[in-house]
Amino acid sequence: MKNKVNVYTISDSLGETSQKLLAAVSAQYPTLDFDNSYRFPFVNQEEELLAILRDALKDEAIVISTLVNAELADKAEVFSKKTGLQYLDLMAPFFDIIQHKTGEQPIEQPGLVHKLDRTYFNKIEAIEFAVKYDDGKHPQGLVAADVVILGVSRTSKTPVSMYLANKGYKVANFPLIPEVPIPQTLAKVNPNRIIGLVSEAENLSKVRSSRLDSLGLNGETSYTNLTKIYEELDYSKKIFAQYGAHMIDMTNKSVEETAYEIEAYLKSVE
Amino acid sequence: MKNKVNVYTISDSLGETSQKLLAAVSAQYPTLDFDNSYRFPFVNQEEELLAILRDALKDEAIVISTLVNAELADKAEVFSKKTGLQYLDLMAPFFDIIQHKTGEQPIEQPGLVHKLDRTYFNKIEAIEFAVKYDDGKHPQGLVAADVVILGVSRTSKTPVSMYLANKGYKVANFPLIPEVPIPQTLAKVNPNRIIGLVSEAENLSKVRSSRLDSLGLNGETSYTNLTKIYEELDYSKKIFAQYGAHMIDMTNKSVEETAYEIEAYLKSVE
Repeated sequence: MKNKVNVYTISDSLGETSQKLLAAVSAQYPTLDFDNSYRFPFVNQEEELLAILRDALKDEAIVISTLVNAELADKAEVFSKKTGLQYLDLMAPFFDIIQHKTGEQPIEQPGLVHKLDRTYFNKIEAIEFAVKYDDGKHPQGLVAADVVILGVSRTSKTPVSMYLANKGYKVANFPLIPEVPIPQTLAKVNPNRIIGLVSEAENLSKVRSSRLDSLGLNGETSYTNLTKIYEELDYSKKIFAQYGAHMIDMTNKSVEETAYEIEAYLKSVE
Repeated sequence: MKNKVNVYTISDSLGETSQKLLAAVSAQYPTLDFDNSYRFPFVNQEEELLAILRDALKDEAIVISTLVNAELADKAEVFSKKTGLQYLDLMAPFFDIIQHKTGEQPIEQPGLVHKLDRTYFNKIEAIEFAVKYDDGKHPQGLVAADVVILGVSRTSKTPVSMYLANKGYKVANFPLIPEVPIPQTLAKVNPNRIIGLVSEAENLSKVRSSRLDSLGLNGETSYTNLTKIYEELDYSKKIFAQYGAHMIDMTNKSVEETAYEIEAYLKSVE
């Protein structure tokens, strides 16, 4: 059985930064079982904070905090020093450095990352755009997109599109199927904005098989046939060349890594 | 003009944790302009690391690192101590606490957050599911969903669905339009899995107007008419009551906050 580590996360907002750090850290300890069911968002009262810290102490938990309220953060620090609680403040060291560099103080308003401003609404719009123009729906959307993603079935077009949308890019994706004609609008798209996704044929065949399994289908079909997949991939590469698409091989890459590569490419040709 | 603060982020993977922390911290300094164009992912060579740190020093930048390789992290620490570089290691303090608590060492393999395992593929599947069953498409999908989101137009159903999908929930959403019948499959869905989104009518009218603007349309329509919106909202609340949906008011809430509330509700009725 794995050794269990209790982690309390405390924030005066949602606590997403702590969650991100915790995911990164816990991945480094495959033999430990991090229990993160103790998540405390929107903490803004001293009594509430101290009650949580006392529980954490009883549970022998590690506490990660992203409190932006300096008074609360100080109380937590003092409590931890006094009791020996394992307490990690993610914001304070950063705040200290900035004060040292610029003399500026944080405004101590929780939840500002999600303020409902122009940037925020652009992101929402980008997500709606990506859903609307997913999988070749409404090909007229290709010209309005910041980036157009092409690829044969199961090259991760949809999740990569959604990940980029979440960063504010308007993404349209279009499936390449040898039997289906390419929409004329694609010729009007700036080639610097077209990405072609490929994957190794063996990998694609495996992914497609498990896709069929999950749909309750099975058996050898042209969808999973290796020769057929090679033909499809060849066809897709021809289309990439024809439209000047930048090709990315996503074999063994995560969606996040592929999206990062696309973003870096888009910036490089801006 | 705003005071500029250069920030370098260094990671042996994508560096998403640093990006998240930086977003949270910079939101606390509206008068400072954080320049984060210096993003260095996949750093795994000492010479490369030292070259970046030297540049950061010249640029008087703050450096945030999430290196999991202890040797590299040590080099960076030593360099910063010696030169006075403002350097913040996000991982090391956490690693120290865990060693103190459990005696365990991190495995020091970068990029493990994105390992292509079952959890990862479930997330991809959830994203594809949410795109497929967005906006009432294929209402038969309602029964296969972990959560069904209902609401009148512009209550953030799509972005909330995508945000939850990104956390692994299979989400279907269905628009409530008084003139359009509810699909029969909704009656088969466990009420504990149905969420109804509402918003204040005035807010909705404003959001819809700017929606029409962005589509190049304008003028008063029944879509933005306040009396009509009150009727729509009343109708939606009747439907929520009929199907046992849990209602959430997303007026002045961000998508992330609304999604968090849904997640908390789903866990509470599990």
